[in-house]
Order: sequence, then structure tokens, then C-alpha cells
Amino acid sequence: MALLSSDEQNETAVTMDSMVAGVHFLPDDPPDLVARKLVRVNLSDLAAKGAKPFAVMLAAAFPVGTELAWIRRFADGLGEDLAYFDVALIGGDTVSTPGPLTLSLTAFGRIAKGRTVLRSGAHPGDRIWLSGTLGDGALGLMAARGQLGDLGDGHIAFLADRYRLPRPRVSLGAALPGVASAGMDVSDGLVQDLGHICRASGVAATVEAATVPLSAAAQAALAADHSLLATILTGGDDYELLFTAPAAATPAIEEWGRRVGEAVTAIGVITEGQGVTVRDQVGHPISLGQGGWRHFSASGKGAEA
Amino acid sequence: MALLSSDEQNETAVTMDSMVAGVHFLPDDPPDLVARKLVRVNLSDLAAKGAKPFAVMLAAAFPVGTELAWIRRFADGLGEDLAYFDVALIGGDTVSTPGPLTLSLTAFGRIAKGRTVLRSGAHPGDRIWLSGTLGDGALGLMAARGQLGDLGDGHIAFLADRYRLPRPRVSLGAALPGVASAGMDVSDGLVQDLGHICRASGVAATVEAATVPLSAAAQAALAADHSLLATILTGGDDYELLFTAPAAATPAIEEWGRRVGEAVTAIGVITEGQGVTVRDQVGHPISLGQGGWRHFSASGKGAEA
Repeated sequence: MALLSSDEQNETAVTMDSMVAGVHFLPDDPPDLVARKLVRVNLSDLAAKGAKPFAVMLAAAFPVGTELAWIRRFADGLGEDLAYFDVALIGGDTVSTPGPLTLSLTAFGRIAKGRTVLRSGAHPGDRIWLSGTLGDGALGLMAARGQLGDLGDGHIAFLADRYRLPRPRVSLGAALPGVASAGMDVSDGLVQDLGHICRASGVAATVEAATVPLSAAAQAALAADHSLLATILTGGDDYELLFTAPAAATPAIEEWGRRVGEAVTAIGVITEGQGVTVRDQVGHPISLGQGGWRHFSASGKGAEA
Repeated sequence: MALLSSDEQNETAVTMDSMVAGVHFLPDDPPDLVARKLVRVNLSDLAAKGAKPFAVMLAAAFPVGTELAWIRRFADGLGEDLAYFDVALIGGDTVSTPGPLTLSLTAFGRIAKGRTVLRSGAHPGDRIWLSGTLGDGALGLMAARGQLGDLGDGHIAFLADRYRLPRPRVSLGAALPGVASAGMDVSDGLVQDLGHICRASGVAATVEAATVPLSAAAQAALAADHSLLATILTGGDDYELLFTAPAAATPAIEEWGRRVGEAVTAIGVITEGQGVTVRDQVGHPISLGQGGWRHFSASGKGAEA
């Protein structure tokens, strides 16, 4: 059991995410990276709400017969990331399981009262912003599985690393309260998660595909196979910040990104209506079905269903 | 993500417990009882600290192919207990697993600042108190597995029910701050958990076995097989409150027990020294090994190792 102190000025944001071996990470992923991914996935969620992470609790179900050396490396990775992000492990539970390694982390963040960035505050005219680059996580899973073909080892290693080790945008997230009108982190894919914001806010979104920031590795993958655009836009595992803000906030957002050294890019606008539209370079809507995403055609050019 | 409001007067106590099918409950246990046990195990922990439960988050990994009807019954049991204990479900995560059902609950309780009942406050001269009756959980597991022999159906059903559905002493727990010097709930067995309090407090404990409260069913089981005393004292799964308090608090504790209608029994005293001693009716120490418990001999009469 742990105690969270409290005061009149702040609230505590809490999030809880689970990972199962073979479902959310590869069973032979290095143990230290498994632990660090677990931490980072949860910190990403807090960052997107504008909360500063300060503590976690870990529930771990280790398979019967897990070697002590494995658990040590797991604990080392956990400790390393907790130290890096200045977050305390305040409790949890460890059990054994006849099944696969199953992890749940509860993460706590501090935020000034009433300043939490919700999904429901986006307004027509707001710009849509994305941190970092998109698609590296989903392409990285393909890379780790040997499904990406020959992009050169540097790109493959970059993408696989991005799948195994998300970069939660904690510093960027700290600037969101008072600036962002709505936000969340991209875990299920840009289109799906932007759809969540639109539904919660009662608005529509238009994304310009050409402005979506891509890593050099993702660009190389896309050049080799244009149908991967669908993977990039909907594949998930990005753990980037997705938020909306009034146009007037643009200089402040760009300045903050420069200050913390993290890329942040305007990728579209909020409009009246409902649903998410992704447009190609000539302004044609591409591949959005009613209520969700339809897989791109092989040409990378789809149509609204 | 959820927000915990805060103020200057209170702290938030947090606890996290996991349960795995086949390890912490029987795979064919009724789904509603599985959910309710998960809730109650966590609320018991909060109650033992003197905290009033107000919210939970649930991480559930359901086996691939779990039937919707099963999940519905699980959700019904969860909702029923949350309503009964006036606790809100504020978030969590649901994933699928190729392994057994794996559940983690994070539970939140409110407690006045600085009033949390810790393990470390027991003093020589304090009385040791136990709520309810001991051993029903451990005997109930044996009963559910058909390992108890013929006690009559009423007793078997009573014990199996106590294994499947703990009774967290939430009302009793609310009275502990300011009264109890130390406390925890009994989940690993009386002797082990009292040992935790002794180590944390730097004291020893003497328990009079004859004063340990037993249900009629446990008394019947013990009469049929005296070696079950070891199961009762060390078997765990009790989820009763174990706490210490100065002798002067005795009338207040007994009065509170009567008021909330929950049994609470003095079972021994805290002394100087270290370790837990359980004494039989003639004052002889029984069956405590160094640093922990040794299994009783078949006669039910052991010796200090």
C-alpha cells in the first residue's frame, strides 16, 4: 500500500495499462526493454493529459520457471527508466502464472486542478498537432518480425527500436495545459485516436497526409511500398502526443517544441461536422470508411466508402 | 485516465493486487464471485490501514475466446460489489491473453493525513486483535477441492463460500485510526502476517491458540483432524483485520465491534523481543521455526526449531 499526498492546488491523474507477452510485446524482446516499454506507454498517456508523472505501481505475473536473471534484467530496465523520468515505484504485486508474462502498471501524475487536457475540448478552427514522427512503432513491429524487406540495416534497426522503446513526450506534455484544447496520445493509430477526440468534442478533423511527419526510415519504407501509408496512419504503437489548439497558440507551441528539443508538427484542422478525413496532396479524401478506417488499396489511393 | 481530487486534510491510500485463474481462484469459480473476490481482497487491504475505499481501476486480461456471457456475469458481480461498498470504477484496461484470466485491481481509499495504520507501530504491552474468524478461507479452498472429508454439507458450503467471497471489514477498519497502534489484513496467514508486524515494529508477539476465534465449520474440521490447526494459523486467504492496540483501548474496540456488528477478538499480546510464538492451552509454544512457520507434526503438536 502507498500513500499519495495531496493539496488544494493539484489533482492526481491516474492511468493503468496492461501488456501481455506475445500480444503487446514479442516474447523474446529483451527484458529490460519490456519493462521500459511498460513504463513509457503509461507515461505517454499521462503526458498527453498534461500531467507530470511522479509514481507507479507494478503488478507482474511472471510465468512459472522464469529465470532469476531474466527478472533481474527486467528490474534493471524498470529502475533505469524510473530514474530517468524521476518517477518512484511505490508498490504493487508480484505473482506467478502458468500463462505468459502479464504486466499491469498504474501510473500517477500531478496536474494543477482543472487543467487536465481532455478529449472533449476541440473547437472548429483549432489546429491539429502531432509530436515526433508517425508510424515508426507499427513499421517497427513489422521490422522486428522481418516483414519489411530490404531498407538497409540502419532503418530496420531504427524502426525495431522505436517499436520496442516508445519515447513518451513528457517534457512536451508539461506545456499542454492552458495551450491545448484537447489531446491524447496515439496508441491505437492516428486516425482512430483523432476520431476519439472528434467524437468527444462533437467536431470533425481534416488531416493533410503530406504534412504528417515521417522518420527517414518510415519514408524509405513508404517509398518501397506505398501501401504502408495505411500502416503509418492507423497502425498504432506510436505513443506520440496528438492535440488540438487554437491557431493563436501556434507560435507558443513551436517555441516550446524548440525549447524542449522535441518535434511538433501541425497536420490539419478541426472543422464542424463529424469524422476524420485524411486528404492527399491534391486535396482528395483517402480511404476513410464510415465509423472507422478501411484498408488502403494496393495503390495507396482509396476512396470514401 | 482518471483524476483523484485532493485536499489538505486527507491522503489517498493506494493498493494493487493481482489474481490469476488456477493460482488465486479456481478456474471454474463463478465469474461474479471472481470479480467480487478481486474487489474484496483489495478493500480488505485498505480497511486494515484505516482507509475508506472510494474508487478502483481494473486491468483484465481475458483469455482469447472468453464468452461474452462469462464477461457479463463478471461485470455484474463487479458492479454489485462496487455498489455495495460505494466504490466507483474509474478506469483501467482490458486486453486479451493466450493464457489464463489475469486480473489486477488498483484500489483507492481516503484517510486523514498522518492517520494511516502502519505495520510499524506495535509496542510491548499492546493487545493483538483479530476480526471475524480464522482459517475459513484456507479450509474453504480444501472444501472447494473436496479435500475436507465429511463435515456435513452446511459446513462445507460455508467454508467454500468463505474462500470464494472474502468479507472485507470495511466498517471495522474505519475505526482503526487513532485506536490501533499497528495493523494489516491477514492474507498470507496469521503467523506470517503477525511476523511482518513484529519485524516492522521491532517487537515479539505471543498468540494464545485457544483464544483464536473459529467458525463452527472450522471447529468441526479441527475436531475431525487436529492437524488442520496448522492450516488455520498459517493457511492465509482470511482477509480479516489483524491489529494491535494499547490495553486502554480495549473497551473502545469492543464497543465499536458491537456497533458495526462485526466480531473482534483479543488473541494475544505484544512483548519485547522478536518472532511470533503461538502457545497451546497449557502455555507451551507450538510449532514456530526460526524466521517463520514450520509445518505442524501429524499430532498437531510441534516444537520450536
